[in-house]
Amino acid sequence: MPRPESPTPITSRQNQWFRRFLHALSEHDREIVVEGPKMVSDAIASGWTPIAVARSIEVAPSLFGEVDDVIPFTADLFASLVETKTSQGVVGLFVRPQGTVAAIMEDERLVVVLDGVQDPGNVGTIIRLAAAFDAAGVVVTPGTADPFGPKAIRSSAGAILNVPTVTATPDELLAAAARRRKALLAAAAEGSAGSIDMTGSVLIFGSEGSGVSTLLRQASRLIAIPTSGRVESLNVAASAAILLAQAFEQRQSRR
Amino acid sequence: MPRPESPTPITSRQNQWFRRFLHALSEHDREIVVEGPKMVSDAIASGWTPIAVARSIEVAPSLFGEVDDVIPFTADLFASLVETKTSQGVVGLFVRPQGTVAAIMEDERLVVVLDGVQDPGNVGTIIRLAAAFDAAGVVVTPGTADPFGPKAIRSSAGAILNVPTVTATPDELLAAAARRRKALLAAAAEGSAGSIDMTGSVLIFGSEGSGVSTLLRQASRLIAIPTSGRVESLNVAASAAILLAQAFEQRQSRR
Repeated sequence: MPRPESPTPITSRQNQWFRRFLHALSEHDREIVVEGPKMVSDAIASGWTPIAVARSIEVAPSLFGEVDDVIPFTADLFASLVETKTSQGVVGLFVRPQGTVAAIMEDERLVVVLDGVQDPGNVGTIIRLAAAFDAAGVVVTPGTADPFGPKAIRSSAGAILNVPTVTATPDELLAAAARRRKALLAAAAEGSAGSIDMTGSVLIFGSEGSGVSTLLRQASRLIAIPTSGRVESLNVAASAAILLAQAFEQRQSRR
Repeated sequence: MPRPESPTPITSRQNQWFRRFLHALSEHDREIVVEGPKMVSDAIASGWTPIAVARSIEVAPSLFGEVDDVIPFTADLFASLVETKTSQGVVGLFVRPQGTVAAIMEDERLVVVLDGVQDPGNVGTIIRLAAAFDAAGVVVTPGTADPFGPKAIRSSAGAILNVPTVTATPDELLAAAARRRKALLAAAAEGSAGSIDMTGSVLIFGSEGSGVSTLLRQASRLIAIPTSGRVESLNVAASAAILLAQAFEQRQSRR
């Protein structure tokens, strides 16, 4: 697909670039979209492979690293692609980063697993927490909201650029953890509330409604967060914040 | 304002009840709206004063405690009032609960202060955390999103019913804390990261962008959450989850 040479803005919804951005936004299977000039620059700087950058004609042209040109869209067409506020009139199309659960498990640090977390905002927030508390990476099982969807990317506030994030089936996850002899811990209300050493373990968070799936649960030691009982449950992002902060503190105090 | 006697649904946007619900949803100054049959029942059970309950005519009539009748609205009119999904076709109009910062400070438990937290979702989430970790109550300063607005109520997941929540100016807050000799702690990136005893203190969280305001900051000991430095900051709800869980654990281990 050749890039348009002239700065004439794209006006048609049938345009190949428009449709390609749209496809990446809804499917994010092989190509993904990141929003905003800073996020586009940061993604290129962190080694993500750019395919194209698009801008609204309302925004002045600028250059982005190795990307030759920035494709202009009419304001109307651009607005139908993304949240204009977050994007500030600029979006980038990138190759979806690939990685393996095996590579993440080789890292001695804690690995975060999301097993059926359905809200993309929660997924992005937990990726941000994984960066804040220095996790090796994030593994998501099928049934979890895609970490590379636009809302999850937004909620990660850029953290997805420096936290390896991959999808894997529960079987692949169990096998990879077993090979590296990583302990499996699953957050669950009925778990043990004592101080469990989480350093270097695999820490699993389940879906907002039903928790960690049976297969992973049975393979894991259950870990609970003591609460007052004045609420039924904690939000999964709140649970992740508390346990990841504790794990980080444990690791710091070991040094 | 007499209640309609007949089950004829309200069809007009000029209707007094429709306008009163609408006003409570947008202003929530003297009257507030809660969504969903369970939340309406729970609010009545926790002692909130009901004024009226409304339902969509698509929902079967049911009774709510001391509320004599449930006002039917056409589906169309009802849908323009609230998020139909959360409400399940039922909303209640209540007197806005009143309370004083002095009453909250009399409680020996930790007091949570939100000083300029602008996102109502964060405000509701932190009220839920205050319940989970057994805080005395939540005090919000002007500039904070209203805890009794519909989005904050929804995000609290019912917790606002059992956490006294009041608004107060920074001066009122400082005076009330000083009278009870409560220690003031403010969450701030540049604070001390050691283990500070938070039991029974006043714990202040600032705005998403600029943190705790100068007046309250100067009166407080600053407390930080150690992070890896791989992210610029934590979300305010994540910070609250971590510190409130720590404070709860400190209190439990003192017993």
